Amino acid sequence: MLIIGERINSTRKEVYEAIKSRNAAFLERELDRQIRGGANFIDINCAVTSQDEVQDMDWVISVIQSKSQNVNLCIDSPNFLAISKAMQVYKGTGELMINSITGEESRIKTIVPLAVLRKTKLIALALDDRGMPNTADERVEITQGIIEKVQAVGFNKEDLYIDPLIRPISTEPDQAKEFLNAITRIKSLGVKVVCGLSNVSYGLPDRVVINSTFLAMAMLAGLDAAILDISDKHISSIIAASRAILCQDENCVRYIKAFREGKLI
Amino acid sequence: MLIIGERINSTRKEVYEAIKSRNAAFLERELDRQIRGGANFIDINCAVTSQDEVQDMDWVISVIQSKSQNVNLCIDSPNFLAISKAMQVYKGTGELMINSITGEESRIKTIVPLAVLRKTKLIALALDDRGMPNTADERVEITQGIIEKVQAVGFNKEDLYIDPLIRPISTEPDQAKEFLNAITRIKSLGVKVVCGLSNVSYGLPDRVVINSTFLAMAMLAGLDAAILDISDKHISSIIAASRAILCQDENCVRYIKAFREGKLI
Repeated sequence: MLIIGERINSTRKEVYEAIKSRNAAFLERELDRQIRGGANFIDINCAVTSQDEVQDMDWVISVIQSKSQNVNLCIDSPNFLAISKAMQVYKGTGELMINSITGEESRIKTIVPLAVLRKTKLIALALDDRGMPNTADERVEITQGIIEKVQAVGFNKEDLYIDPLIRPISTEPDQAKEFLNAITRIKSLGVKVVCGLSNVSYGLPDRVVINSTFLAMAMLAGLDAAILDISDKHISSIIAASRAILCQDENCVRYIKAFREGKLI
Repeated sequence: MLIIGERINSTRKEVYEAIKSRNAAFLERELDRQIRGGANFIDINCAVTSQDEVQDMDWVISVIQSKSQNVNLCIDSPNFLAISKAMQVYKGTGELMINSITGEESRIKTIVPLAVLRKTKLIALALDDRGMPNTADERVEITQGIIEKVQAVGFNKEDLYIDPLIRPISTEPDQAKEFLNAITRIKSLGVKVVCGLSNVSYGLPDRVVINSTFLAMAMLAGLDAAILDISDKHISSIIAASRAILCQDENCVRYIKAFREGKLI
């Protein structure tokens, strides 16, 4: 499972302030912390900085590539101009991922050609012009529509990561089950499944307990990527244990290493 | 999922000593701790006390029923005489479960008639005269044999809990996956599935991380009962979160209660 580190996100107050004050050292520490934790991609979100998003994305990516030339980046923006700027600025040898499109025509027409041109991976939220899905069936139907549309623009579906959109169990108790059921069915369409964890626990106490338990179940169901805070020991413990249990960690070597490095709770 | 509290087990040194010294207060505390934690059945194992097992079982059950008249007991012994004594001694209103038979003829012929007579639930380990199973297929085949044999003695298969026997991933890395695959298939035979957790992590550090992660996955797969230490916060957290995620906890009421009572990590 690919781990996409979520910490460099402008919805976090400290990150917003670091971007606004051009505090490169802060971002470098966040980068380092996630890479040491085992992140495969680093998510970069400057969307909250609103009208400055394009310049802020430019600066953040410059800071990151001055620190590391081979980091894989996940460009997290709904804004064509910000994504486009990120692709111009990034000269490293790492892979790129765009986060995200939806089934809406307007985003597919502008963003997917960029992804094809630069050979990036692509996250698509399982929603379209009709809104959010409720059932596993609706998630599968929306995914089929997205696959057709991105293939029409020349995008390879093996690089497509569908986010089936988990919703809070505190208000919609059956949504976690619908999400877990959707994973296998979406994967059978030949695409991958990604998930942002934290929505599942919205409104509940001790959220990381719900998030990490849900992650173990999603890994059993075949989750291909997750956007999360790998520096959280609850999360890194569950991932290390799940990989060992699911035969993704030969001789439990990574699990034992995580224990020795103090990464387990 | 039924929780079978594992703490009153004579393989634990403190329990062995409490039994030998007739320390009733110790056992009462262990009982109380597990009931407060949410155990549905209390496992009673005196097997390590060897030639005194029958008298020791008699004493332990007397202590427990003098403290609580409606506790459900899981009589954990391979010994017909000890099981039989437990059934004579226990006068409470709680349910009984016998832990365990296997597919071996000799144990089925002696123990199952007792279970029929006293209307107990029954745990059967998925092994027979040929030994331990390796694959999900072998576990299903052994289960089919056990079902036929217990039904021939008049036992109702809805009260049969099959333990598919988890083995350590440290030495047999594919065994956890085989176990998880076996759960759904065994349940489709009309019986229930139970599991003793701790073997899965044998030989690894920070075992409770593996045990609790494995439990979340087994609950997703449909596990009906587990033998575990519910007073361990890692375990009680994963169970509370799994129930909330799997729609087994209306409005997350039990999860929030567990949080308020300090039962979550």
